[in-house]
Amino acid sequence: MDKTTTFQPGLNGVIAAETKLSYLDVEAEEIVIRGYDLIELAEKRQYIDLIQLLLKGRLPDGAEQQELEETLKLEAPLSDSLVQLLAKLPKDTHPMDALRTGISALAGYDKNLGERKNLEQTILRLLAKIPVITAGSYHLLQEKSILEPDPDLSYSANFLYMLTGRVPDEQEASIFDQSLMVYSEHEMPNSTFTARVIASTNSDLYGALTGAVASLKGNLHGGANEAVMHMLLEGRSVEGFRQLLLEKLARKEKVMGFGHRVYMRKMDPRASLMKEALRKLAAVKNREDLLECCEAGEELMKEEKGLYPNLDYYAAPVYYLLGIPIDLYTPIFFSARTLGICAHVAEQYTDNKLFRPRVHYTGPRGLHP
Amino acid sequence: MDKTTTFQPGLNGVIAAETKLSYLDVEAEEIVIRGYDLIELAEKRQYIDLIQLLLKGRLPDGAEQQELEETLKLEAPLSDSLVQLLAKLPKDTHPMDALRTGISALAGYDKNLGERKNLEQTILRLLAKIPVITAGSYHLLQEKSILEPDPDLSYSANFLYMLTGRVPDEQEASIFDQSLMVYSEHEMPNSTFTARVIASTNSDLYGALTGAVASLKGNLHGGANEAVMHMLLEGRSVEGFRQLLLEKLARKEKVMGFGHRVYMRKMDPRASLMKEALRKLAAVKNREDLLECCEAGEELMKEEKGLYPNLDYYAAPVYYLLGIPIDLYTPIFFSARTLGICAHVAEQYTDNKLFRPRVHYTGPRGLHP
Ligand SMILES: CC(C)(COP(=O)(O)OP(=O)(O)OC[C@H]1O[C@@H](n2cnc3c(N)ncnc32)[C@H](O)[C@@H]1OP(=O)(O)O)[C@@H](O)C(=O)NCCC(=O)NCCS
Ligand SMILES: CC(C)(COP(=O)(O)OP(=O)(O)OC[C@H]1O[C@@H](n2cnc3c(N)ncnc32)[C@H](O)[C@@H]1OP(=O)(O)O)[C@@H](O)C(=O)NCCC(=O)NCCS
Repeated sequence: MDKTTTFQPGLNGVIAAETKLSYLDVEAEEIVIRGYDLIELAEKRQYIDLIQLLLKGRLPDGAEQQELEETLKLEAPLSDSLVQLLAKLPKDTHPMDALRTGISALAGYDKNLGERKNLEQTILRLLAKIPVITAGSYHLLQEKSILEPDPDLSYSANFLYMLTGRVPDEQEASIFDQSLMVYSEHEMPNSTFTARVIASTNSDLYGALTGAVASLKGNLHGGANEAVMHMLLEGRSVEGFRQLLLEKLARKEKVMGFGHRVYMRKMDPRASLMKEALRKLAAVKNREDLLECCEAGEELMKEEKGLYPNLDYYAAPVYYLLGIPIDLYTPIFFSARTLGICAHVAEQYTDNKLFRPRVHYTGPRGLHP
Repeated sequence: MDKTTTFQPGLNGVIAAETKLSYLDVEAEEIVIRGYDLIELAEKRQYIDLIQLLLKGRLPDGAEQQELEETLKLEAPLSDSLVQLLAKLPKDTHPMDALRTGISALAGYDKNLGERKNLEQTILRLLAKIPVITAGSYHLLQEKSILEPDPDLSYSANFLYMLTGRVPDEQEASIFDQSLMVYSEHEMPNSTFTARVIASTNSDLYGALTGAVASLKGNLHGGANEAVMHMLLEGRSVEGFRQLLLEKLARKEKVMGFGHRVYMRKMDPRASLMKEALRKLAAVKNREDLLECCEAGEELMKEEKGLYPNLDYYAAPVYYLLGIPIDLYTPIFFSARTLGICAHVAEQYTDNKLFRPRVHYTGPRGLHP
């Protein structure tokens, strides 16, 4: 076979990497993470356990879990000068762009930038600081001061506290932690692929993550969760929301929160888990109306287009009921996914080959200036 | 054929996009840019002409050329607040990371961020400002104040002036302009691919460029030109340089500035052009010794490994004789390549399909937490 002949737009179906990290098994309807089912992990474990699982290939015991939590707490605070730099960003800056600039600037504080033997330490530092940059840069854009991380709270409870300014109760913290787990890793979507492509030039982890933030911002990718919430608010009632979706379909617009390159005609199991979480929160917060809207939209899209909700569709109303500002949904997705992306970059480094595909040229030839 | 079966590490030989912009015709030994031979363009035209050629598909006439030059001059100056933000970067920041942070932050000043109808205007603004950010952020890291762009100079002469602090003579400006042309576009190397992958999520141009800077920083890509200059300086003489290369080969290290995924066993025509430029500069500046070192290295690598110089190998000593600080070589490469990358992003938007390849999973299965 001539390996250059077939062109698949968007590399649809093309295998671009070998990985031991995760796999979407469409037949078995399973999201495999290092051999485990992601949904089972999300039901039985915590985000912090997934950190060790993804980075080292095995789940931590109690002592390892505690040590990890300690390391993350120590590394969390931002330097004053980084906070000052973030405070200089124009107030109209998009929160994803503020996060991107923050991660990019952070590279200048790393005395061992790009040294492979420090990679694991760098990853933990980034996992500690990225939630703080996410929440902090947003508050600075709102002309508020940033909230220092609270070392008395767990990793996820502290993250949620920094986002909302309110210490969450146990149920809220646990649902938020679960959302981080289901966002943590998902084979090789565009942002993870971007990071591996960048890392393959021997560029460093900060650069790979900076590119991945840029990718995740797009509305065909992470940007979808915010778009979903805006639609739900615009629709207001079951009837209004159905109407809105029907109008979008009539205009042949894509409805955010539905469809997926890989599952497409099957329900995303992460969406089912978040739907359960939404059911619980809606009951406690007396917002069953929001759940009803979502269910009506789900029904309508199945009937009209045969499309099923993806994770973003149910994560959005969950974040809304947790009191998180909508502009932060995609940055949170990125913060959670930092874990998977870092694991992929580390893997790329261990057996690297520069990504450098070819093109099919369709322009003119033989011109002279 | 099952489209998912063959795995080419690094997507070697895989066609990942259709393009009307450029093509490496290995058989004809031609770098095709919108139908023209890049080398012929570089001999007969100016960088500013390539801007219109790449963005609109045809070379400008005199009036269009002048209008473009005016637009670029108007858009060049940076806002005070961006300069203040760049001044906050830690002084150890790598110049490519400063450039990356600058482009990322610039997004916050764009009132029409992401609006497709403003794309061409945005591209021109970025082409105007990126050289200023490149030079300015470097001077700020050196604790010097930034040089304002000089509207009396041409685009390339001004860029070179901002880099060195000295108004170049005509020959210097013309050689620098030629280097920008040969760096401007080159089919779909890693950085351009990164930008297209990011843009395919509907993310904006600033994000795509930010990711591309991160990619170009790697030493398997743009980082090579700086590495070459450090080797030349370390070698010092023909004998010393030969020795250094032999040692590297004995240690099975890659020698920066040689080889290329696509030509590999042929001389890069851009390298030949820069070799000519080096010959001229070496004569004027009495540095024939530098040319001799380069030629000795070229000879040695051909004999020992059958490898030929790529563009970076001869661009490095040219920049050195132009008096440019070595740390700026890769940022300059990026500034020149901004043009090609922007054209690719615009093309990606016109017929977009989300990049989302698959993986080959090689990890365990069937584990339970
Ligand atoms: C995720 C997504 C980009 C994957 O799509 P893809 O593999 O590139 O496939 P396409 O976009 O080409 O879609 C295939 C078909 O399904 C339709 N479709 C897919 N997702 C759709 C959606 N959300 N709403 C309406 N129609 C949709 C397309 O219009 C297309 O129909 P056509 O063949 O009649 O033109 C796509 O489903 C989408 O844009 N979804 C909305 C954004 C979103 O929620 N992203 C988060 C993903 S986790
Ligand atoms: C550009 C580059 C990454 C393309 O390489 P690639 O297509 O991925 O091919 P590989 O790196 O696998 O190289 C193939 C073989 O040539 C050898 N080779 C390639 N470039 C080499 C170099 N610069 N020095 C020494 N050996 C080299 C490799 O060691 C390998 O040999 P092997 O088969 O015995 O292991 C590679 O040539 C390189 O690293 N060059 C140096 C960096 C550089 O100058 N980059 C700027 C490019 S514009």
